[in-house]
Amino acid sequence: MNIGTSETLYESVAGKIESLIEQEVLQPGDKVPSVRKLSSEQGVSLSTAFQAYFLLENKGLIESKPRSGFYVKFAKSKLPPQPQLIFPKHSPSLLNVNEMISKVLKEARNEKNISLAVASPHYSLLPVAQLNKAITQTIRKGKGEYLNYDFPPGHERLRRQIARRSFDWGGNLHSDDIIITFGCMEALNLCLRAVASPGDTIAIESPTYYGILQAIESLGMKAMEIATHPETGVDLDDLEKALNKTKVTACLFVTNFNNPLGSCMPVKNKRKLVNLLAHREIPLIEDDLYGDLFLGKSRPVNAKAFDKKGLVLLCSSFSKSLAPGFRVGWTSPGRFKEKIERLKFMTTVATSTLNQMAIAHFLENGSYDRHLRKIRTAFNNQISLTTQAIVKYFPPETKITRPSGGFVLWVELPGNVDAMELHEAARAKHISIAPGPIFSTKNQYNNFIRISCGLPWSEKIEEAIKEIGKLIITLSNHQLSYL
Amino acid sequence: MNIGTSETLYESVAGKIESLIEQEVLQPGDKVPSVRKLSSEQGVSLSTAFQAYFLLENKGLIESKPRSGFYVKFAKSKLPPQPQLIFPKHSPSLLNVNEMISKVLKEARNEKNISLAVASPHYSLLPVAQLNKAITQTIRKGKGEYLNYDFPPGHERLRRQIARRSFDWGGNLHSDDIIITFGCMEALNLCLRAVASPGDTIAIESPTYYGILQAIESLGMKAMEIATHPETGVDLDDLEKALNKTKVTACLFVTNFNNPLGSCMPVKNKRKLVNLLAHREIPLIEDDLYGDLFLGKSRPVNAKAFDKKGLVLLCSSFSKSLAPGFRVGWTSPGRFKEKIERLKFMTTVATSTLNQMAIAHFLENGSYDRHLRKIRTAFNNQISLTTQAIVKYFPPETKITRPSGGFVLWVELPGNVDAMELHEAARAKHISIAPGPIFSTKNQYNNFIRISCGLPWSEKIEEAIKEIGKLIITLSNHQLSYL
Repeated sequence: MNIGTSETLYESVAGKIESLIEQEVLQPGDKVPSVRKLSSEQGVSLSTAFQAYFLLENKGLIESKPRSGFYVKFAKSKLPPQPQLIFPKHSPSLLNVNEMISKVLKEARNEKNISLAVASPHYSLLPVAQLNKAITQTIRKGKGEYLNYDFPPGHERLRRQIARRSFDWGGNLHSDDIIITFGCMEALNLCLRAVASPGDTIAIESPTYYGILQAIESLGMKAMEIATHPETGVDLDDLEKALNKTKVTACLFVTNFNNPLGSCMPVKNKRKLVNLLAHREIPLIEDDLYGDLFLGKSRPVNAKAFDKKGLVLLCSSFSKSLAPGFRVGWTSPGRFKEKIERLKFMTTVATSTLNQMAIAHFLENGSYDRHLRKIRTAFNNQISLTTQAIVKYFPPETKITRPSGGFVLWVELPGNVDAMELHEAARAKHISIAPGPIFSTKNQYNNFIRISCGLPWSEKIEEAIKEIGKLIITLSNHQLSYL
Repeated sequence: MNIGTSETLYESVAGKIESLIEQEVLQPGDKVPSVRKLSSEQGVSLSTAFQAYFLLENKGLIESKPRSGFYVKFAKSKLPPQPQLIFPKHSPSLLNVNEMISKVLKEARNEKNISLAVASPHYSLLPVAQLNKAITQTIRKGKGEYLNYDFPPGHERLRRQIARRSFDWGGNLHSDDIIITFGCMEALNLCLRAVASPGDTIAIESPTYYGILQAIESLGMKAMEIATHPETGVDLDDLEKALNKTKVTACLFVTNFNNPLGSCMPVKNKRKLVNLLAHREIPLIEDDLYGDLFLGKSRPVNAKAFDKKGLVLLCSSFSKSLAPGFRVGWTSPGRFKEKIERLKFMTTVATSTLNQMAIAHFLENGSYDRHLRKIRTAFNNQISLTTQAIVKYFPPETKITRPSGGFVLWVELPGNVDAMELHEAARAKHISIAPGPIFSTKNQYNNFIRISCGLPWSEKIEEAIKEIGKLIITLSNHQLSYL
C-alpha cells in the first residue's frame, strides 16, 4: 500500500481535466464542461464536480467567469523550457563559499523582507491545533519525564513510527536502525563525519543546497560536483567518469526533489547508483528531506531500499512537512550506526525529548498522512501560481524547472543578468531571493535564482514577483547597454 | 545584589548550629539545644526553630530521638581527606578514549540500573508544573509561530533573560553577545571548532568531564592535561609551565565546580588566568554549566567578567538546573561570535523554538531564582547524605571531595582497587558508577570513581552505596591476596 495513491474522488476527476489541458485538447480560453455535465459524465455528485473545479482554479489552471462557467486559463504545455543540464569540471576543491552564503542568508532571514528565499513552509500550512494537542497531552500524561535526557539513538516510540513509515519508500527499517537527530542537517553532518575525514572528497549534485556546501567546507572536506538533470537528478555517466578519475570518499545526494532543482531520480537510476557505489565500497549519504512532499501520484522509492551492504546512510526530518522549529530529524546509517550514535552524543548529547515525544504522539494518531495530503496540495497550487506569475512578469527567455516534489523553483534568467546583483537590488525593495551562485562551489549559476513557494499565495507575493521581473529587465538592459 | 545571599531565617539559624558542629563545640552524640531554647535564644518562632532542625536532619547532621530531642549525628570535621593534587605529564596527545567511554556510558544509561553514573538532576527535583504552564502558555499565545525556525543567534527574549542574569556572575552581557545552542555541549563543540583546527592542542583540567575529551578526540584535536586542585581548580603554575613548553591553541576549563572535582577557582585565580592567556592571545573556553549550582553562600564570579579582549568564550546551559531534556544552552563567545553563528547554522540550523520560548517565559516570570534555591538545598542534602554513606560503607583509606557546587563526588579508593573492574562488578549488581579512567587521557585515576548525587536520597541508594562498598573491599582483598 502506497500512501501516495490514495487520491480522493474529486482529485481524480480534476486530474482528468488537467490531463486534457496538458494534451491541449482544452486550450486557454476554452470553456470546460459544465459542472452538471462533468457530474453526469463522470458519475459523481455535483458537489464532487465543484470540488474538482475549485482545485483546478486554486492551481490557476482554470478561472470562473460569472454566470458563464469555468474557462481554461493556463496550459502547462505553454510553460517555458526547463534549464539545461550543466556539466561541471571534476576537480575536487576545498570550498570557500561560507562568506558569501552567510551574507546572503543574513538578508534572507530579515523578517521585514518578503522572503522568497527561505525554503520553509509557513506555519499557516502546518497542523498547529493538532500539534498543540500533541504537546499538551504529552506533558499531561507523565510526571515530567519529558524533562529527562533521551540519549541516542533517541525516543523509542518515535523511532518505531519512522520505521513503520519506511514501507512507503520501499524500505523495511526496524526502530533499532534509526538515530534521532536535530533535523536533517545534523544527520548529514554526523554522517559526513562518520564516513570521511578532513581533506577527503565528497561527490555532490550540481546545483545543490548551500547548507550541504557549508557543512562540507566547515569539516575541511572537498566537494566534487556531478552534473544533475532538472528532472532525473544525478547523471550516472558523469558520476562514473568522476569516480574513475578521482578518489571519492562518499557521495551526498538529494535523490528525491533535489533542492533547488526539484528533480527525482527514477527508480532504475537509484538501483544503478546503489550498485555502482556498493561495487566500489563508497558510502552514499541519501538526503530524503523532501521525499514525503511528492507532487505526482506516489511517494518515490529511496535508494536506501536497494542497500544490501549497509552503505546507504538515509537522512530525513520533519522540518519541511510538519514542524521546522522542532528540529527533529533522523538517520538510518546502516553499518555506521554505532559511530554516529557516539558522534551524536559528543556533539549535542541528545535530541530534545518533548519535541520527539510530541511528534511520536502526532504520528501515532495517524494524522500525518492526512496532513501530508493537504500540504502537498497547497505546495502544488503555490508552485503553479508562482510559475504562472514568473511567466507573466519575467523576460520571455526565462527558463523554469517543473519540480516533481518539494516547493522551490529554479529559475534561469537571461545570460547577462547577474543573480548577485539582482539579489542586492531585490533586497533594496525588501524582497529576498536565493541567488544561484550559493548553490555551487564553482562560481557558476550566475544567472540563476531559487524562488521558494513555502508561503501561501497572496497579492503581496505576486507584487514581489512582478517587482523582481522589473528588476531583471532593468539589469538585463543595463548590461546590454555596456556592450 | 547577589542571588545567593538571600538566605531565609531558618537557614541562617541552621547555619549557626552547623558551624558549632563543624568547630566540634557540638560533637557526635551530643544533644543540641532544645527547640524552645533555640527559639528564645535566637529570637525566632518555634516554627522557625523546628524548620532549622529539620534542615539539619535532612542533611544527616543531626537525628531526632523520640521524646528526647535532637542529637548530633555526623561532623564534617570527621570527613576523610580530599584526594591529592596530581600533576599529569605535559605531552599533548591525540586521544583514544571514545571506545572506552562509549562502552561505560551504554551501561550507565541502562534504565534497569540504579544510576549513580549520570550527572543529571532527577525530574522530581525540577519545577515540572511551572514548566508545563510555560509551555502551554507559549503554545496558546501565538498562532503557531513556535513551529517556525528561530535562526541563530536564537530567540531574542531568551537571550535578553540570559544577558540580564549575567550581573550575577560579574558580567555585563547584551542580548546581542549571546548565541543559543543545543545545550552546553553544542556550545563547547562550536567554540572548539571556531578557535582551533584538527591537530591543535587544547589545555584541559585533569580530571575533566569525559564529554570534553570525546569532543576533542572527535574533532581530531590534541589534549594536554593541567593539574587541577580539588578545591581551587586549575593550578596556574602548572598551566604556565605547560604553555612555556608547548604551543597551546586554546584552553577549555570548567572554572566553577569542575566535573568531577567540584572545585571552584578563586576570583583572583580567574583574573590571573584571563590575564595570562590574554597576554599570549590564547582563547579560553569557559564552561560554566554548574555555576548556578553553588553550595556556598554566593554565586561565583566567572573568568568572563575579566575578559577585555573578547578572548573568553563563555558556555552554559539550563540542562543541570532546569530542563535537561530541553537541550537549551548558550555561548557568549566574544570576538568569535560571527564564526560561531555560522557554524551553528551549518551543523544544526537553529535551536528548537518552543523550548527556547518556554524557558524565556519561565525566566521572565521570575521563578528561576526560587527554583535554584530549592534545588541547591536538595543537592546539598544529597551530597551530605551520600558522603556520610560512603564514610560508613567504604574502606577507611577512601578519600572524598567536598564540592563547593554541582552534585557529583570524586572518590579515591584504596590504590589497589581497579575502578574499571569495580564498574564491571557493580554493573552485575545493576548499579552504575562512572570509573575514574574515563575522566583522563593519560590512563590515570585508575582507583577513582565519580558518584552522582542527582537522584533524591532513598534507601535504595543507600543500599547501592553499601553494595559498592562491599565490592571495593572484596576487590581490594582479592588484589592483596595476589601479593
